[in-house]
Amino acid sequence: MKVTILGCGLMGASLAACLRARGLARAVVGYDLDPQVCARGIAAGLLDECAASAAQAARQADLVALAVPVGSMPELLAQIAGELGPSAIVMDLGSTKADVVAAARRALGPAFARFVPSHPIAGGERAGLERADAGLFEGRTVVTTPADETAADALARVEQLWRACGARVERMQADEHDRVLASVSHLPHVLAFALMGQIAGEQDAQRKLSLAGPGFRDFSRIAASSPPMWRDIALANRDALGQELRAFVATLQRIGQAVSAGDGTWLQQFFQRASDARRRMDGRERGE
Amino acid sequence: MKVTILGCGLMGASLAACLRARGLARAVVGYDLDPQVCARGIAAGLLDECAASAAQAARQADLVALAVPVGSMPELLAQIAGELGPSAIVMDLGSTKADVVAAARRALGPAFARFVPSHPIAGGERAGLERADAGLFEGRTVVTTPADETAADALARVEQLWRACGARVERMQADEHDRVLASVSHLPHVLAFALMGQIAGEQDAQRKLSLAGPGFRDFSRIAASSPPMWRDIALANRDALGQELRAFVATLQRIGQAVSAGDGTWLQQFFQRASDARRRMDGRERGE
Repeated sequence: MKVTILGCGLMGASLAACLRARGLARAVVGYDLDPQVCARGIAAGLLDECAASAAQAARQADLVALAVPVGSMPELLAQIAGELGPSAIVMDLGSTKADVVAAARRALGPAFARFVPSHPIAGGERAGLERADAGLFEGRTVVTTPADETAADALARVEQLWRACGARVERMQADEHDRVLASVSHLPHVLAFALMGQIAGEQDAQRKLSLAGPGFRDFSRIAASSPPMWRDIALANRDALGQELRAFVATLQRIGQAVSAGDGTWLQQFFQRASDARRRMDGRERGE
Repeated sequence: MKVTILGCGLMGASLAACLRARGLARAVVGYDLDPQVCARGIAAGLLDECAASAAQAARQADLVALAVPVGSMPELLAQIAGELGPSAIVMDLGSTKADVVAAARRALGPAFARFVPSHPIAGGERAGLERADAGLFEGRTVVTTPADETAADALARVEQLWRACGARVERMQADEHDRVLASVSHLPHVLAFALMGQIAGEQDAQRKLSLAGPGFRDFSRIAASSPPMWRDIALANRDALGQELRAFVATLQRIGQAVSAGDGTWLQQFFQRASDARRRMDGRERGE
């Protein structure tokens, strides 16, 4: 299988690393807006060649993987649309799905049947090819959101690839994916950015941060994530994220009321529900 | 030096462990509302004896350390007030300072001059004597907030003790401590509780959490913290926390506006400021 990876950041390069480590590809061709990144991918042994353009990279590929911020997907899809062979499969690794599916449907025409939307729930706040990790998807969930038109064989092939990289595959509707991820991924990222951005804008930011403890470090770690990537996600999923933000503001206002009213009973009950739920998560992870 | 530790949870027991490991105490007497906890402290080699009451534990101690949730400090201080020897030093390990200082001033009378308010910025979301760690304070900051009346020798003794446990000591006003900690500790804990509590209250909570990635786990880890401890902190520091909550809600509403208006430029700038600040924190930690 000849695989083309468009976008050689953490996700694309980790996919390349997994393909290499498991011997899943005959050749891996890369393309990145920054040619030096792609060149480093060859030097690191992750890629066999670098293409001069996305269009060129897509030609003769059996599988094209789109690993760019979701806001760049429409243009990239348009660039490769006329270049795909009849049996080529296209998949994406984007963090939002409804917008990417819509863009693929618009751009690919009949080839949309061979487009498989997928989202590996993996990664980290520090991006870049240098952090490529063949084990990044190990034990993680990859969500696929096939459309009515998606060809069964293309879907099976992509899901098989993710399983070969150690992931658990879960299929769902694109809208449901976006609604769930708004809650457990997009909102918390925005909250971490918001807290860090708020503190950073204050005069005594440095002093405050010098007194931050280990809990703050864990909480705010995802605020180091890529700003353009998260700008794209926030805009791509604006309806679901907006709804989550409004619900969260209402929750904070309710907590604020309890704090100013000195309602310790309510606070403890609310904190208890949260703490129990968080501890159960750890328990499930340990297989309890 | 004979040390009495009131409250044998993570903080108290870790202090005991440090005293042991560094040979800083001739004897360590413990007291806990739950006598079995104290007994486990003896079994673990952290304590020499368990007292039947806080009052009894305080008698003949050279140093009394109060390691209970801040809401329990006033009653505990009242219980020991009449029992302290003339040269005994009392310190606390509470997460808020103005309320504890006020309670100590009320309860201790003239002995308030030998009360040293301190807050080790250390710990973890999982509490309990079983997690006692002699190195818990290593490399951490301990804030002391002496009052005008605080005796210089008592303050010096307590700060020396924390340094002996590997901590960096920073002195500041109690009000300033509470304002700074509201921002970098109390607010993020409330945000983590709020997100986890909100998700836990939804019908599809389990499904949502099953799709949470590593970023969510980091972000929400502190939501597993002790509910009564955090109820106490929220109430003790209600003014500063309330102000932080209102400012944060305003920040979220501003972000929500940018999201619904599709203002990618503003979002990226805001995220960039946050991401830069968070990365600088990591850099400072690595000594860059």
